[in-house]
Amino acid sequence: MQRYFIDSNVPESQKISIGIPHYHHIINVMRHVSGDQLIFVFNAGETYIVTIEEVEKETISCHLTERLEKTVELPIDVTLACGLPKGDKLDLIVQKTTELGIFSIQPFEAERSIVKWDEKKETKKRQRLQKIAQEAAEQSHRVHVPEILPLLTSKKLLLELAQYTHVFIADEEEAKINEQKVFKKLLNTMKINDKLLIITGPEGGLSRNEVTSYIEKGAISGSLGPRILRTETAPLYAMAAISYEFEL
Amino acid sequence: MQRYFIDSNVPESQKISIGIPHYHHIINVMRHVSGDQLIFVFNAGETYIVTIEEVEKETISCHLTERLEKTVELPIDVTLACGLPKGDKLDLIVQKTTELGIFSIQPFEAERSIVKWDEKKETKKRQRLQKIAQEAAEQSHRVHVPEILPLLTSKKLLLELAQYTHVFIADEEEAKINEQKVFKKLLNTMKINDKLLIITGPEGGLSRNEVTSYIEKGAISGSLGPRILRTETAPLYAMAAISYEFEL
Repeated sequence: MQRYFIDSNVPESQKISIGIPHYHHIINVMRHVSGDQLIFVFNAGETYIVTIEEVEKETISCHLTERLEKTVELPIDVTLACGLPKGDKLDLIVQKTTELGIFSIQPFEAERSIVKWDEKKETKKRQRLQKIAQEAAEQSHRVHVPEILPLLTSKKLLLELAQYTHVFIADEEEAKINEQKVFKKLLNTMKINDKLLIITGPEGGLSRNEVTSYIEKGAISGSLGPRILRTETAPLYAMAAISYEFEL
Repeated sequence: MQRYFIDSNVPESQKISIGIPHYHHIINVMRHVSGDQLIFVFNAGETYIVTIEEVEKETISCHLTERLEKTVELPIDVTLACGLPKGDKLDLIVQKTTELGIFSIQPFEAERSIVKWDEKKETKKRQRLQKIAQEAAEQSHRVHVPEILPLLTSKKLLLELAQYTHVFIADEEEAKINEQKVFKKLLNTMKINDKLLIITGPEGGLSRNEVTSYIEKGAISGSLGPRILRTETAPLYAMAAISYEFEL
């Protein structure tokens, strides 16, 4: 998502007209129309969601819609559906993806997950992971603490996909050269406040059965580069790439 | 670096003329000229460095220069100069940056490094880290094993900067909103086989003195997003972003 740096202070009227040089990019390149929302960064870094009111021949009239106080939060909500990995890898995943701006984490029992959580273990594990998320959020000065959602089976996860704007499966078996651009293309189409679910598998990956059933529900699959990444590295890669795309 | 997907097989003649749609991007957008090198991906994912021979009105004549057999290696060489962190964090950094495509790792004693390596400890540590790099390279199917370079002091590191095409300092104290684009802009200017050095500090970061002395030697500093990242997370972020930029 493109941020536009506006060389003025925040207008007291809460309205602003934009001409050259941003006009060309907003209208001709990004093809925005009335009603669309953009992010404007004013002097001193004050950041607002603005809504386009009217597109004229050389200017765009906008009004400020919402002040983004939390400039440390990503402009999209990212949830990680993480197939239960072995050992304490989930601790690392929760800590690092929290630092990297994740919104929530959805653990699920993938077909190839060796680890199982019974009810008692789940309660304990989720408490522990929630504490890790809390500490990592504080350490990285976030204003949102990611929620560790209740464990789902792989089939129950399927029923949750509809509540997300986009679902991306990080799938190494699909990692052929022509599919390496899928993730970048997806991020380029996303809008402010969109909800993205990223599904990563346990050691051994997702089963073909799982991937097919998610794709039938509208998910898309793609790779995270040409190298084989470990279970715990794929979520970190995805989150760093999202920050790089939306925040740098 | 832009890869161009060419909808044909590798030409037997080792020569190829390119017209629409790539012409516009190569010549007008990227402003390439005769002698410049590009990456072409042919059918079945065969990837070559090609050199522009001649730019005509609507076509570009190129010859194939080098087959990139190692498509799992990044097209630029990235070295991480990592201020010695506490505990076993360097183990994690070496393992994860190797998975993410690093070329070599240069440990250095930063002014704020609490950990010190004497000669005996250095030998042992480097052997251990080299083994971690070897295993991670194998696991991620790489063809290059990153080298763990001999420990330097912060001052000695300064003398090494000249051998890199670009030096980037990941510096959180510089992480003001207007400097968030520095890293992305830098990556966008890089060319095939450029050598990039990324400097990250230990816990507590680099001293102002260190940052200033690196900048005097041509380094540039910038942030890796708006959130505070732990010592071991910054290198992973940088490497994932580089892969996202160059490989997806």
